Amino acid sequence: MLYFRNDYSQGACQEVLNALVETNLIPTAGYGTDQFCAAAAETIRDLCEAPSAQIHFLVGGTQVNKTAIGAFLRPYEAVIAASTGHICVHETGAIEHNGHKILALPSPDGKLQPEQIRAAAEAHCDEHMVLPRLVYVSNTTEVGTVYSLAELTALSDCCRELGLLLYCDGARLGSAMTVEGADTTFADYARLCDAFTIGGTKNGLLFGEALVLTNPALFPHFRHAMKQQGAVLAKGRLLGVQFDAVLRDGLYLQLARHANAMAAKLRRGLLDLGYQMAVGSPSNQLFPLLTPAQETRLQQDCAYEVQSRDDRGVCVRFVTSWATTEEEVDGLLTMMKEVRA
Amino acid sequence: MLYFRNDYSQGACQEVLNALVETNLIPTAGYGTDQFCAAAAETIRDLCEAPSAQIHFLVGGTQVNKTAIGAFLRPYEAVIAASTGHICVHETGAIEHNGHKILALPSPDGKLQPEQIRAAAEAHCDEHMVLPRLVYVSNTTEVGTVYSLAELTALSDCCRELGLLLYCDGARLGSAMTVEGADTTFADYARLCDAFTIGGTKNGLLFGEALVLTNPALFPHFRHAMKQQGAVLAKGRLLGVQFDAVLRDGLYLQLARHANAMAAKLRRGLLDLGYQMAVGSPSNQLFPLLTPAQETRLQQDCAYEVQSRDDRGVCVRFVTSWATTEEEVDGLLTMMKEVRA
Amino acid sequence: MLYFRNDYSQGACQEVLNALVETNLIPTAGYGTDQFCAAAAETIRDLCEAPSAQIHFLVGGTQVNKTAIGAFLRPYEAVIAASTGHICVHETGAIEHNGHKILALPSPDGKLQPEQIRAAAEAHCDEHMVLPRLVYVSNTTEVGTVYSLAELTALSDCCRELGLLLYCDGARLGSAMTVEGADTTFADYARLCDAFTIGGTKNGLLFGEALVLTNPALFPHFRHAMKQQGAVLAKGRLLGVQFDAVLRDGLYLQLARHANAMAAKLRRGLLDLGYQMAVGSPSNQLFPLLTPAQETRLQQDCAYEVQSRDDRGVCVRFVTSWATTEEEVDGLLTMMKEVRA
Amino acid sequence: MLYFRNDYSQGACQEVLNALVETNLIPTAGYGTDQFCAAAAETIRDLCEAPSAQIHFLVGGTQVNKTAIGAFLRPYEAVIAASTGHICVHETGAIEHNGHKILALPSPDGKLQPEQIRAAAEAHCDEHMVLPRLVYVSNTTEVGTVYSLAELTALSDCCRELGLLLYCDGARLGSAMTVEGADTTFADYARLCDAFTIGGTKNGLLFGEALVLTNPALFPHFRHAMKQQGAVLAKGRLLGVQFDAVLRDGLYLQLARHANAMAAKLRRGLLDLGYQMAVGSPSNQLFPLLTPAQETRLQQDCAYEVQSRDDRGVCVRFVTSWATTEEEVDGLLTMMKEVRA
Repeated sequence: MLYFRNDYSQGACQEVLNALVETNLIPTAGYGTDQFCAAAAETIRDLCEAPSAQIHFLVGGTQVNKTAIGAFLRPYEAVIAASTGHICVHETGAIEHNGHKILALPSPDGKLQPEQIRAAAEAHCDEHMVLPRLVYVSNTTEVGTVYSLAELTALSDCCRELGLLLYCDGARLGSAMTVEGADTTFADYARLCDAFTIGGTKNGLLFGEALVLTNPALFPHFRHAMKQQGAVLAKGRLLGVQFDAVLRDGLYLQLARHANAMAAKLRRGLLDLGYQMAVGSPSNQLFPLLTPAQETRLQQDCAYEVQSRDDRGVCVRFVTSWATTEEEVDGLLTMMKEVRA
Repeated sequence: MLYFRNDYSQGACQEVLNALVETNLIPTAGYGTDQFCAAAAETIRDLCEAPSAQIHFLVGGTQVNKTAIGAFLRPYEAVIAASTGHICVHETGAIEHNGHKILALPSPDGKLQPEQIRAAAEAHCDEHMVLPRLVYVSNTTEVGTVYSLAELTALSDCCRELGLLLYCDGARLGSAMTVEGADTTFADYARLCDAFTIGGTKNGLLFGEALVLTNPALFPHFRHAMKQQGAVLAKGRLLGVQFDAVLRDGLYLQLARHANAMAAKLRRGLLDLGYQMAVGSPSNQLFPLLTPAQETRLQQDCAYEVQSRDDRGVCVRFVTSWATTEEEVDGLLTMMKEVRA
Repeated sequence: MLYFRNDYSQGACQEVLNALVETNLIPTAGYGTDQFCAAAAETIRDLCEAPSAQIHFLVGGTQVNKTAIGAFLRPYEAVIAASTGHICVHETGAIEHNGHKILALPSPDGKLQPEQIRAAAEAHCDEHMVLPRLVYVSNTTEVGTVYSLAELTALSDCCRELGLLLYCDGARLGSAMTVEGADTTFADYARLCDAFTIGGTKNGLLFGEALVLTNPALFPHFRHAMKQQGAVLAKGRLLGVQFDAVLRDGLYLQLARHANAMAAKLRRGLLDLGYQMAVGSPSNQLFPLLTPAQETRLQQDCAYEVQSRDDRGVCVRFVTSWATTEEEVDGLLTMMKEVRA
Repeated sequence: MLYFRNDYSQGACQEVLNALVETNLIPTAGYGTDQFCAAAAETIRDLCEAPSAQIHFLVGGTQVNKTAIGAFLRPYEAVIAASTGHICVHETGAIEHNGHKILALPSPDGKLQPEQIRAAAEAHCDEHMVLPRLVYVSNTTEVGTVYSLAELTALSDCCRELGLLLYCDGARLGSAMTVEGADTTFADYARLCDAFTIGGTKNGLLFGEALVLTNPALFPHFRHAMKQQGAVLAKGRLLGVQFDAVLRDGLYLQLARHANAMAAKLRRGLLDLGYQMAVGSPSNQLFPLLTPAQETRLQQDCAYEVQSRDDRGVCVRFVTSWATTEEEVDGLLTMMKEVRA
């Protein structure tokens, strides 16, 4: 069985595992107040060229989105997001559970446009409606597309003009920063966003998302919000150790670059075989269209997710990761050739 | 510097670490729907003699308390707890954040009495007051005391008579089950409680709390509640692997027994040195009283927490763990002798 | 200045005012546990042919929607509604504030179709998504349209098959039951819905919405939920007195019939003058289209709301009520004639 | 049957009723954006000598406490209150439903002391505990006692020093301002508190609490918070009309003075008869102690509440109001004489 279901099917990359084993018996203070977290935070501030940024380490993606957005907003404030946004559907209403409405705007390519944001902000004009206050984007998006620096800058300008916070969910930030033609850096996110995450779970860590807060208005008492949400890990050191291992020497982007390279090879192969893509994605998620019969044959030997079924066919999702090998890609292409036959 | 600050100062015990390393590259489905979690759940059901129990694996203690209690209660329902209960003070209002009042009852020894529960239930008699619905106990308690089988049975009988759910926070359940004279088993908790946790974080795992639901009324859609709370770990396998490693062959109780033995040795030594205990605890947390001057000297060379300062002196907390060595206990006793000199 | 802004621009109809004045000094128990509320509840149970229904009296529409839906749902459960639904936009996220996502489905005529409900329920298939549990409809809808008995029956059948609760917001229920061709009765709502409201605020009362619960699963502790939401009026008698005054002898439908008759006269007049309606509404809200210039002239002498501005023109909303007079309708028609000139 | 159960057993005082009848058919904009609310707000600003205060009108006490405190606090922030505080027990966990813990401090006389506040603030020192942010007091308190100007000033000084908001629940503010020896004015509350309420429900209105915000940090978007809580009355004018009627010409304090005078007469009579008071209250609530047998006889002919039953006897509560007559007081005293015989 080949695994292209997601980029969190396996444990951690060897360097991360080594770091955990090596530091295992060193006693530290709990809750992330240890030297490993301090070092990882310092590394992130350096990478972000943001010496006064607050860095927090949380365990998972839904947790960090829920905790951050919940801490940033007043009860009647709302989030603007693309309808494909992870918080819109696949977090079981976590944002709403914290009390906040999400204004989900249509987006065929998973991205938000400044004009959409402006229109939504203007439409919510009095106290009978929620008050839009935060714009949520993901990079890469949930459909694998990538915001360019120009696009992010336009969003940031729009948000600042309208008094909205810009939050970027970077669960797959490494992939976004290393696709062909990528032009964003950690420092860009720090400069353009009020807060963003550097995803570890999907890029070689056992788990972990680093949250970077650059807007000082968001700093006070954020640790209170984390603890209240059950988002402070007792052995918080585990997060510091892992992030430091991948960020200190550039491994983070290297792992992501590998995942993208494996996806690129797979993409070329699929297009050569004549498959069409439901949405054009340059990153480590691919969305080829199969016929129902093809999909039935494929599922015998490959693990993946079905994204949608409609008139165009069955849209499946293949995800590559830091752990995907060339052999696995070749194996999948062989399989896809047979399926198509 | 000696570390007696808590039982989560270090990583994982060797067997847990080995299991994580060995399974690291095996691809699995995400979110705890893998074979390792299935195996660990089956092990727990066996230990609990509860073949139809639902088992869920969560990352941390506040998270599991918040998720479980939030899922069990209607908005106007409340929790009864001892005022020393972890949810009352040290979870930053996580239960209230989910909307539920905690009725904190006074308890010098950290335990609840059936009569207290009955009185609280009777006092809340109409719709102008919250409706008590769940009783929260911890074993061991936050002050290191331990409920006996007879005490737990009495609580359970009382709760069932009054229509209240009984929930046991087992963050230190291993310690409770292995103190001298302990008479409770996993099966007792399964039989007497509606839900309880088996704590991993404080007993040799990197992290993890297993939640055992035995009351079928609590089963439906619990996974929805977990996901909504950000409490579903993407690589959920990590929890299954760890719990299976410690529970399959009795290692869990063995680790706890070691922690208790180290505490017993330390307790005897402290009493021999003439120290008094603020509260008599048979488990792996000790609460000796020092003079302010003694405490000032101790803090140079030992990491621990100060519990309270009052007329009786400074109550400090020493915690032993699976990782505490005889040498460390001897070292602390030597230090305490000097401090007293 | 003519007032066609809404159906709650004035106080109460004379009969309601009289009843309040007559009972003013009679001392009663508080919080709606008085003889007037008991009588009104009995009247409603009779009208609904639902002898075991629970009746609650609340002050306002957002309050009753928020309280009822919040009491009915588990944290991860969601509401299905037409995107025009009052709870979707104009209650400032009150449902989300209680923690629940609303799945807003597109609806040009303000009504939900069973197939839409089915599709939404099927699409939400696992714990990574909210669990649809309640269908919210309004009758009349927010755009003035009316569900027929056949349509309501189809919705009810669909909901019961799918295990969904059906809740009808009857803020303008009187109007829905008395439009030309109306074929629903109080008993139909009681039979087909799990819960519904009988709106008083917009039909001759100072304030007040009666909530009728017919599904016994929704009965337990509903008063707790009300009190927690701040929705128990201290002098609850005021609600009983008012509802009894309008429901005892059929005044409720008579007031609504008058509002509909005034709207019908206005509609005919507007159509005769050549105005087009943005949406065809048979009830007491009309949505004519004006040119921007026409609208600018109208706003000098008439109070109303602007619904939308787009390529079709300015859609304004005229609302008639129990208090609207023939003279006022004639006056508005004269004005509209001049505006058009 | 004599009624001493509470001060909201009857409708409104005649002047309020007249004002409602007189303005009944005047059309106005909805939601409190009308001329009557504007006039009442201006009257309140004048009385408070607070020309820039924000004034909001809400329907009930639990609603205003829940809405205000919910709007003021961040999720992890907590309320400090006396354990007798209305929000602690008798609002069905409304504050917790909004997510906030209440730190209930012991208080035999219903009042908070600055030292208690300071101790609570200091004890909550890190992110594992909630962050105290608002101090809730009631004047009169729930046991009928009254804060003096000196006491309120000391509380205010303490709160400002510690960065805490001071909120005064004035459900019975009129009574507090008119007891014998009272030395506080509306302007004092405006100067010393960040927010306070002027209670209408218990002092001659059908319903209504005026919320006065003096701290500008609490102003932004408060109307959003109200609407989200279902606390914006459609015919908001009813609140403006009523408050203007009682506040414009001093009727508010006159009504309260009457209630206090009736209580004073009753108190003297009860003491003369030899009854003891469970707590000494100078205001319109009295708490005499009866034997169980006495109480059994009394309940045949008088409506009142039982506050507690313990070794000292049955503590009952008699409440006088704007509507209480001398004859009723004489009647109750006659009854109490017989009961004692």
